[in-house]
Amino acid sequence: NAFMGLERAHWAEARRTITRLLSADEPRLRDDAALRAMALIPMRDVRMHLPADIGDYTDFYSSKEHASNVGVMFRGKDNALMPNWLHLPVGYHGRASSIVVSGTPIRRPCGQLKPDEKSPPVYGASKELDFELEMAFFVGGKATTVGETIPIEKAREHIFGMVVMNDWSARDIQRWEYVPLGPFLGKNFGTTISPWVVTLEALAPFLADGPAQSPEPLPYLRESPAGSTFDIQLEVHLQPNEKPGFQVISKSNFKYLYWSMQQQLVHHTVNGCNVRPGDLMGSGTISGPTESSRGSMLELAWKGTTPVSLGEGVAPRAFLHDGDVLNLVGFCQGDGYRIGFGDCIGQVLPATP
Amino acid sequence: NAFMGLERAHWAEARRTITRLLSADEPRLRDDAALRAMALIPMRDVRMHLPADIGDYTDFYSSKEHASNVGVMFRGKDNALMPNWLHLPVGYHGRASSIVVSGTPIRRPCGQLKPDEKSPPVYGASKELDFELEMAFFVGGKATTVGETIPIEKAREHIFGMVVMNDWSARDIQRWEYVPLGPFLGKNFGTTISPWVVTLEALAPFLADGPAQSPEPLPYLRESPAGSTFDIQLEVHLQPNEKPGFQVISKSNFKYLYWSMQQQLVHHTVNGCNVRPGDLMGSGTISGPTESSRGSMLELAWKGTTPVSLGEGVAPRAFLHDGDVLNLVGFCQGDGYRIGFGDCIGQVLPATP
Ligand SMILES: [Ca+2]
Ligand SMILES: [Ca+2]
Ligand SMILES: [Mg+2]
Ligand SMILES: [Mg+2]
Ligand code: NI
Repeated sequence: NAFMGLERAHWAEARRTITRLLSADEPRLRDDAALRAMALIPMRDVRMHLPADIGDYTDFYSSKEHASNVGVMFRGKDNALMPNWLHLPVGYHGRASSIVVSGTPIRRPCGQLKPDEKSPPVYGASKELDFELEMAFFVGGKATTVGETIPIEKAREHIFGMVVMNDWSARDIQRWEYVPLGPFLGKNFGTTISPWVVTLEALAPFLADGPAQSPEPLPYLRESPAGSTFDIQLEVHLQPNEKPGFQVISKSNFKYLYWSMQQQLVHHTVNGCNVRPGDLMGSGTISGPTESSRGSMLELAWKGTTPVSLGEGVAPRAFLHDGDVLNLVGFCQGDGYRIGFGDCIGQVLPATP
Repeated sequence: NAFMGLERAHWAEARRTITRLLSADEPRLRDDAALRAMALIPMRDVRMHLPADIGDYTDFYSSKEHASNVGVMFRGKDNALMPNWLHLPVGYHGRASSIVVSGTPIRRPCGQLKPDEKSPPVYGASKELDFELEMAFFVGGKATTVGETIPIEKAREHIFGMVVMNDWSARDIQRWEYVPLGPFLGKNFGTTISPWVVTLEALAPFLADGPAQSPEPLPYLRESPAGSTFDIQLEVHLQPNEKPGFQVISKSNFKYLYWSMQQQLVHHTVNGCNVRPGDLMGSGTISGPTESSRGSMLELAWKGTTPVSLGEGVAPRAFLHDGDVLNLVGFCQGDGYRIGFGDCIGQVLPATP
């Protein structure tokens, strides 16, 4: 958090220094085996931790395709997008305590379910455990004070870097609880992030244009779409409990999002809400324009009507099964190199009612 | 947080020790003026701070009268309570960073408003700034782990103590943003709590019975209403900007709440969501059965149709005006003594658009 709380110039300097130390024509590390042994640790010997103490966690809902898919499923085609959706980046507060690092198993949650419209709710294990393919950014720079706003031109200075995120969701718990105050126990049983924070500096070669926004946002949210986002390829890898080996069930891209990280952060602070280094802000499920780029089981299996086929000997999936392992993979493909985000992996453990 | 993280027996021991040191027949402090000067500091010389580093903040919605009032106003009498309301303590995550201690001024927030149904939203200062009369409890005891639940019999062991809370709310911002993911910028510009945490031990003489619950809650939420809550009197004091002096505009009581703190905490963890000492859980607006016990301007002025009269020379209030000072006062009235919660006070500053 202290490092994230410095300014962008410091993050860049630290990055330059590390890059220099690791380069082939810099003798310091290259020619000193003892120092090298101390500084470089094989990844297999490392246990990764959360990259920061997360003060507050916010999750947005910024994929137009995801919001539309969910809208069509639950409200029909004519009311797919809520009236506010195109005017502001809709978001809500999530639970910081249950954010876990990649590799942590996720226990299937229990809670109140309403399987039958006409009968009272029952207690039991969720039958509709889902993932959400998301990315998230860590807030950086000096903490703002209560009452202070961040103008859109300054937003990038308050974004330290990005991770891949799985916002595990229990759809049946969520459906029964979420009106009128939003998702709560359907989400806060666990949220997984990848352990490597990739800074905006490192992502600079992959700047991409955001989508055209219509209607034009209010002035405080207005920015040029040129270079407002990043080209980050995303894949959902699922290993079903019946059969070893991961299968790719969805391919999406961060650049599909309608609202940019800058717009999310500016909106979050327009009312004077303060942000602190180490705060985490999720993008919302990142679904793309095609069926194969949908970012959740809910959408891939379209509410269970088109279960996801995983080959012979494996039950088609409407939702996740116990023992399934999910890995969300993000990378930027350069000319002859790749910037990866590390794994964002978790296995589903059976419920303990 | 470290003290809150100990067990109930330690909190009780600390309380006994302090009580003994302060009693008239204990010479230690009484007869040592120098020690007394060090240990006892006049309240006028003290600047209070937040009583803990708040990891996560949750706000519930547990007053049946409040939920019904809001429901009648916005959905009509027949759909006043949502179908889930009587089955579970509805709650949502709030923002921990903008919780401030009593005395901190609150800046009127700006944001997106939709004053005209048919026109696009506009940016501006909230015209419907409101308070919410709440109490909140601090979680105590050992942090639970992700996946762990707290059974109802153990819930009290995880409640350290209580404060009075004002969940400042901008109704116009909230109305436009909150579907479908809940309140966000309409709430997170500031939340005020009283600085003194009153432990459950201290409140023991004021144990009270909770209301009968029908339908009977699911087994995991079931407890005897005998002694499930506390008799804590609550008052809303408003000093209008036009005229010095506070006027009491509402009187309510913590015991009016439908869902108990134990039920809130048990529900919060039924899915394995972990809690940590220092987490704060708000009760939701505490409205009573009568018109004079409503816990927000929205209800007192009934959506602006019956503005609150504040005497000669003062404009009747539908919502709060700049310069108004609000103090939420809580106390337990014993036989010849009173346990107070200290002030929960804040002045409204004009917006800075
Ligand atoms: Ca999400
Ligand atoms: Ca509230
Ligand atoms: Mg989650
Ligand atoms: Mg608030
Ligand atoms: Ni001990």
